[in-house]
Amino acid sequence: MTALTPAQAQAPALPSAEQTDPAKLGWMVGSPPPPDKVIRFEDGSGYRFPQLRWSFSHQRQLIPTTNVSRGVGAVSPLPRAERNDLDAVRFTPLGKTEPLTWAQAFDANYTDGIVVLHKGRVVYERYAGVFRPEGQHIAMSVTKSFFGTIGAILVAEGQLDENAVVAKYVPELQDTAFGDATIRQLLDMRTGLKYSENYADPNAEIWAHVRAGGVLPRPPGYSGPKSFYEFLQTVKKEGEHGGPFTYKTVNTDALGWVIRRVTGKGVGQNLGERIWSQLGMEQDAYFSVDSVGNEFAGGGLNTSLRDLARFGELMRNGGQAGGRQVIPKAVVDDIRKGGDRSAFGGYPTLPGWSYRNMWWVSHNAHGAFMARGVHGQAIYIDPAAEMVIARYASHPLAGNVNNDPTSLPAYHAIALHLMANPR
Amino acid sequence: MTALTPAQAQAPALPSAEQTDPAKLGWMVGSPPPPDKVIRFEDGSGYRFPQLRWSFSHQRQLIPTTNVSRGVGAVSPLPRAERNDLDAVRFTPLGKTEPLTWAQAFDANYTDGIVVLHKGRVVYERYAGVFRPEGQHIAMSVTKSFFGTIGAILVAEGQLDENAVVAKYVPELQDTAFGDATIRQLLDMRTGLKYSENYADPNAEIWAHVRAGGVLPRPPGYSGPKSFYEFLQTVKKEGEHGGPFTYKTVNTDALGWVIRRVTGKGVGQNLGERIWSQLGMEQDAYFSVDSVGNEFAGGGLNTSLRDLARFGELMRNGGQAGGRQVIPKAVVDDIRKGGDRSAFGGYPTLPGWSYRNMWWVSHNAHGAFMARGVHGQAIYIDPAAEMVIARYASHPLAGNVNNDPTSLPAYHAIALHLMANPR
Repeated sequence: MTALTPAQAQAPALPSAEQTDPAKLGWMVGSPPPPDKVIRFEDGSGYRFPQLRWSFSHQRQLIPTTNVSRGVGAVSPLPRAERNDLDAVRFTPLGKTEPLTWAQAFDANYTDGIVVLHKGRVVYERYAGVFRPEGQHIAMSVTKSFFGTIGAILVAEGQLDENAVVAKYVPELQDTAFGDATIRQLLDMRTGLKYSENYADPNAEIWAHVRAGGVLPRPPGYSGPKSFYEFLQTVKKEGEHGGPFTYKTVNTDALGWVIRRVTGKGVGQNLGERIWSQLGMEQDAYFSVDSVGNEFAGGGLNTSLRDLARFGELMRNGGQAGGRQVIPKAVVDDIRKGGDRSAFGGYPTLPGWSYRNMWWVSHNAHGAFMARGVHGQAIYIDPAAEMVIARYASHPLAGNVNNDPTSLPAYHAIALHLMANPR
Repeated sequence: MTALTPAQAQAPALPSAEQTDPAKLGWMVGSPPPPDKVIRFEDGSGYRFPQLRWSFSHQRQLIPTTNVSRGVGAVSPLPRAERNDLDAVRFTPLGKTEPLTWAQAFDANYTDGIVVLHKGRVVYERYAGVFRPEGQHIAMSVTKSFFGTIGAILVAEGQLDENAVVAKYVPELQDTAFGDATIRQLLDMRTGLKYSENYADPNAEIWAHVRAGGVLPRPPGYSGPKSFYEFLQTVKKEGEHGGPFTYKTVNTDALGWVIRRVTGKGVGQNLGERIWSQLGMEQDAYFSVDSVGNEFAGGGLNTSLRDLARFGELMRNGGQAGGRQVIPKAVVDDIRKGGDRSAFGGYPTLPGWSYRNMWWVSHNAHGAFMARGVHGQAIYIDPAAEMVIARYASHPLAGNVNNDPTSLPAYHAIALHLMANPR
């Protein structure tokens, strides 16, 4: 047996998107499904690859949820102007020399669905596996950008003081790491917390966090925290607040508690009232909830793909939709301006980026900014190209470092192509 | 202490609708809710009164569910022509001499929401507690009428032979009570089954049935069936098939298995494709599901109130909606004609009624027929009055015998009033 080179060891051979197509694998098909095709919450198979290629589109079949209502109004038009020239657009993946096409990137990223808006019109839309236009897919940490935005709106409205500490709003967090963190530090994830988000480490606190919230099953005899709020009260400080950007999901759940306390409404209700019912969404969205009814603000939102794109389009248009200012332009401007670039680091695929109000800001020539979630969930907004891309995926590896090389240059290539070839 | 008369013992003093208003009681309100305001699936409080006044509108916050998609089309208009003269309409409750008004009946029935359509227009619509126009409420056994209708459609299309036995379609049920029952006997609930639907008896099989499906929590160490299908395979015969109408929920779940096997699609998908996406529904509906993804066909549907009314309107119009024949007129005619009245009995509030394709048929002068679910869920269709009433409720007592006296004569009084006072 020949030893692997470091490069080979780094890139284990993964089964392809085609080999793991959840429709072809037949998960949960049959009456009843064969035992080896059943995905159960209890055994954790819903978060295992390749089963997650099914369960990312079927979260509420596995766990309790609450609705984010679109209301009872009309659906806002999303005009269609599909064009067949995008599939052949070529780009060079990060760290490679051989180009790929946009069409090839679809499978390379284990894409479940992708839509491209140009000047507000659908120029490209494609689905695979078990995800459908009328279905909802888990947004993972794309969820955070919704709540960073809502948090920033509450600051703009004066309901939240960004310089106040969390304990002012949630006294229950006084003696935790969050107690003396400011709202601004939460919004930009510049807190010092003993909390690991390393998905490859089974002892990382992220797992205790999601188990507390009931997102993943608990081992027999489990005696840990039984809700998100109970978990938040166990988080200890490590280092100081106000230092470098350090991405930790738990910040968003703490922000969610603040939002809930300040508004007297669940975070899902806030999202419904402020955004979902304001944009003529096609579908309700939904949230996973814990045992006391709290939504997983850090990563539990599930939406249709087009509705995700509608939110991206709202951000591209400075908070306007249908001729109305749905969210303050100053909030969108602040996000687009980005955060402190000197505080950002450690992301080899995101050189020179920053993080602001739970959005990822590229600072490239087009002013592109993103919402990002593990396994390839994304909203990519390119203001210069008047382009929004929304993508849901089920990549075998959680970290977006694994799909960025075949995603980020592809997005930029499409942006350049649309600018050079307007229709 | 004075002994109660039998009549008093029969009618325990129940706390009023106002006293048990779930919004006023504040269930699940707060961040987090106070411990005594938390409703958890695990402790069964979601099915306890008065907590059920909250949980009937929040089923998916307690249990896993699947969607019944409305698709991505436009919402069908439900024109409004509200009138303020209905509240004063008087009727005499069954077995009483003192009249009540329509407005008083709202609280007497612990109504969560009610809508009255006259000639397809909303003439009355009212909500209470925590139920909203954009929310979904559990339909309980109103669910059955959807699947009786779909079963009858499959018979009309020749996909199902009503004279064939269940085992022909589901061999797994060969050695159970269902094996030699015909599809027609299932559809009309004229099967001989050892299965009690007595909600007042904790040992009734209905409880084992819903526990198998995960609708209610299981006791520690539970070793019984873990899905609806596993439970169905335990049901034994008692008496003969083809005898009197005997209402047993399990018939509908057996029918659900037949529908799933014959169509190769889940019962929720069948409902979505054949009805929900065809009527321009406002909201998706949803189903509770068991551990292998099977919907609770006997009682697990949750819908918005107006969408329930839209289905009633479809039935009133002989299966037509928006100028299209959505379901065969012959199926609707067969339901309206009713079942064998001589086989029907045991319902003091329903004298002379019959049961056909999982609908309740009054055989009154107006040809009224109903879908009915425990705790007061109802669709009441009065063809002569061109009227449809859809109601969701959370009555403290399960059996509709408890609310029929203040419901059925009220519906009829409104029908007569609308006929006498057209607008």
